[in-house]
Amino acid sequence: MHKRIVILGGGFAGLYTYKHLRRLLARVPDVRITLVSEKNYLLFTPLLHEVATGGLMPEVIIEPIRTMLDLSRSDFCKARVKRISLTTAKVETSEGELPYDYLVLALGSETNFYNTPGASEHAYSIKTLADAARIKNQILANFEHAVYAPEQERSSLGTVVVVGGGPTGVELAGELAEFLNRTLLPTYGAGERAEPSVILLERGERILGYEPERVSNYARDVLMRKGVNVRASMTVAEVSGDGVLLKSGDRIAARIVIWAAGVKPRVLKLQPPSILEADGRIPVDALLRVRGYENVFALGDLAAVTDAHGVRVPDLAQSASKEAKVAAHNIAAAIVGTKQRVFTWRPTGFLISLGRWAAVGNIYGIFVKGPHIWWLWRTVYLFKMLSWQKKLAVAVAWTVNLFSRRDVSEL
Amino acid sequence: MHKRIVILGGGFAGLYTYKHLRRLLARVPDVRITLVSEKNYLLFTPLLHEVATGGLMPEVIIEPIRTMLDLSRSDFCKARVKRISLTTAKVETSEGELPYDYLVLALGSETNFYNTPGASEHAYSIKTLADAARIKNQILANFEHAVYAPEQERSSLGTVVVVGGGPTGVELAGELAEFLNRTLLPTYGAGERAEPSVILLERGERILGYEPERVSNYARDVLMRKGVNVRASMTVAEVSGDGVLLKSGDRIAARIVIWAAGVKPRVLKLQPPSILEADGRIPVDALLRVRGYENVFALGDLAAVTDAHGVRVPDLAQSASKEAKVAAHNIAAAIVGTKQRVFTWRPTGFLISLGRWAAVGNIYGIFVKGPHIWWLWRTVYLFKMLSWQKKLAVAVAWTVNLFSRRDVSEL
Repeated sequence: MHKRIVILGGGFAGLYTYKHLRRLLARVPDVRITLVSEKNYLLFTPLLHEVATGGLMPEVIIEPIRTMLDLSRSDFCKARVKRISLTTAKVETSEGELPYDYLVLALGSETNFYNTPGASEHAYSIKTLADAARIKNQILANFEHAVYAPEQERSSLGTVVVVGGGPTGVELAGELAEFLNRTLLPTYGAGERAEPSVILLERGERILGYEPERVSNYARDVLMRKGVNVRASMTVAEVSGDGVLLKSGDRIAARIVIWAAGVKPRVLKLQPPSILEADGRIPVDALLRVRGYENVFALGDLAAVTDAHGVRVPDLAQSASKEAKVAAHNIAAAIVGTKQRVFTWRPTGFLISLGRWAAVGNIYGIFVKGPHIWWLWRTVYLFKMLSWQKKLAVAVAWTVNLFSRRDVSEL
Repeated sequence: MHKRIVILGGGFAGLYTYKHLRRLLARVPDVRITLVSEKNYLLFTPLLHEVATGGLMPEVIIEPIRTMLDLSRSDFCKARVKRISLTTAKVETSEGELPYDYLVLALGSETNFYNTPGASEHAYSIKTLADAARIKNQILANFEHAVYAPEQERSSLGTVVVVGGGPTGVELAGELAEFLNRTLLPTYGAGERAEPSVILLERGERILGYEPERVSNYARDVLMRKGVNVRASMTVAEVSGDGVLLKSGDRIAARIVIWAAGVKPRVLKLQPPSILEADGRIPVDALLRVRGYENVFALGDLAAVTDAHGVRVPDLAQSASKEAKVAAHNIAAAIVGTKQRVFTWRPTGFLISLGRWAAVGNIYGIFVKGPHIWWLWRTVYLFKMLSWQKKLAVAVAWTVNLFSRRDVSEL
């Protein structure tokens, strides 16, 4: 009888779990892994902001899932997950029912608008390729519209507000400033230009609030120099088609508001539903097993993972890939009967791009910054890309971008 | 007082007219050219079939229009053309009214379903990037669906019918056969595969009917060897969601029917409407001027251009670019008061790709074929691409494709 492992989710968490399992179980007979995902590709989310701002073509930051699988010992099921029953050990998908012996929950997260009025209707998310294309196309449409619009509309047509000063918002704001000022503006004649402006709103006292203060200050200074209007201690009270209303009562006129303020776990129809935490996350034990189910593992953005000291592990591609390694180990150990392993969280550091030739980071506790870090940042991401074809495509695109303007085509 | 030249259409015809005019009028003062297009990019249509079959990313075959314009002496107007009044010399667009001194009508064509029942609802066009993406995504969806579909549906889920054995249909069929058999099929495990099949239906006695018989025969033999089922003398009576009904009464079960059987001029709201020919084309004189209007020129797919012998010039990128040269010359001549020129049509030849390593063509009357012609075909297209950035991107993609499978990601 086969052992059936079902992995739900085609993001970093799911794919890394698959890759580790494939290696760990290479010589174990009678195991079959099924990976379930709604999209047929892995999206390299850390580069999404470059797609939204014309630096990379959408297809270079995705990798088809099927070409990553060993089809003799695993399947891909392109389907939507409808219901998960831990009670009967079955997953109901849009392509039928999948029974499992081991289950990995890695379905990720969606944008969290925190019930801000108007946000889910009017703000742009930045989670998928379609999101990135929508943002780019709307920026282009607004700039085109500004050519024929009355003088007084040119400011709001050229303004992009980014809500949320975390890594996503910071990287996006830096790229947006370059895209609007350096790439887009010169393609319009004098007298037909929108007035470009990028405003980064952070609710806390400083952007990148989880990092040391010198990181925040450096990032703020670089962004300001690049033309980003960085405004901390600003809470958005409402989003509309005309811009944002701040809690202070001030209004910012903008045709595009991008919401990078947070994520929440994807909503699951789980049986029994009682196991979910109040914030919708799935609580896991130190082995990353869903509490009460020895054969079900949860990781990535939808799991409430805590480290040895009880501190919540942040939602990062980095943490997801480390969790994947432990979850895969523990499933393999359960199958072959060896010892399982406790998950420990030791961040190796982070690197944040601040637009062309600028980056800031912290590697094993050391503060790093400057153009060489920007190169390092890009190389790190390049090496994380999965196939040589996509590595080459990204490297060529980045090299071209050093010598020429980005692409202003609609997507 | 400025002379205002308005060019309607951002395809080959419109862009080439612009480029020639820009050169010819470089030293002529007081001229302003406005180019109007609904999309902000030029689409390199001859490579569209490679996008539909995973050979090229969509963005490498487009070129943003704004970066091609000299903004000090011309404008781009991204807008839909609503009405054209030759009587009052004004164009009404979705962004406002444009008066003109000289007008170029180059709005191109759309798919012609020849009133075949069900065709416009169920058949896929192949004219835009969105069309190419729809075709690729539907093929991928059908193959994924086949994994879980009952045995008897695997044939129709794997079948793609191409209607029309002209250059577009022939090139597409060759690429489809490779995509289905060489790229897509190996990404599925045994027992979960759709049965791939590409059927090319031609109404006439042979495919590429306008070319010499040996060209047709060679193309047919190559396509058959690559697994395309080439069927001549087949008229489609009806298209449905299940496939096509032939005039003979036979049915072909297929979930995807691609209509490459012909085009018709884009429908214009023209004042006076009486000047249009019965087939919707605009009749032009030997100088490419719309009959009765010395300051209005028409070219490309929407013009009824005849050569010196009264024979209709075919709708090709090649003819459009040659017409553009003459139209631009004649507008410039009218402005500076020099002699206008008669359009003569002398085809330089053609090259048709028949999938990987195979092509056929006719260059100045000489029959050519084989792998070196395939290389030539690609080089010809590469050199026609407009910017070095896109040339590089296409060259890299094609080189990668020589060593690896195409991209099976959804678009």
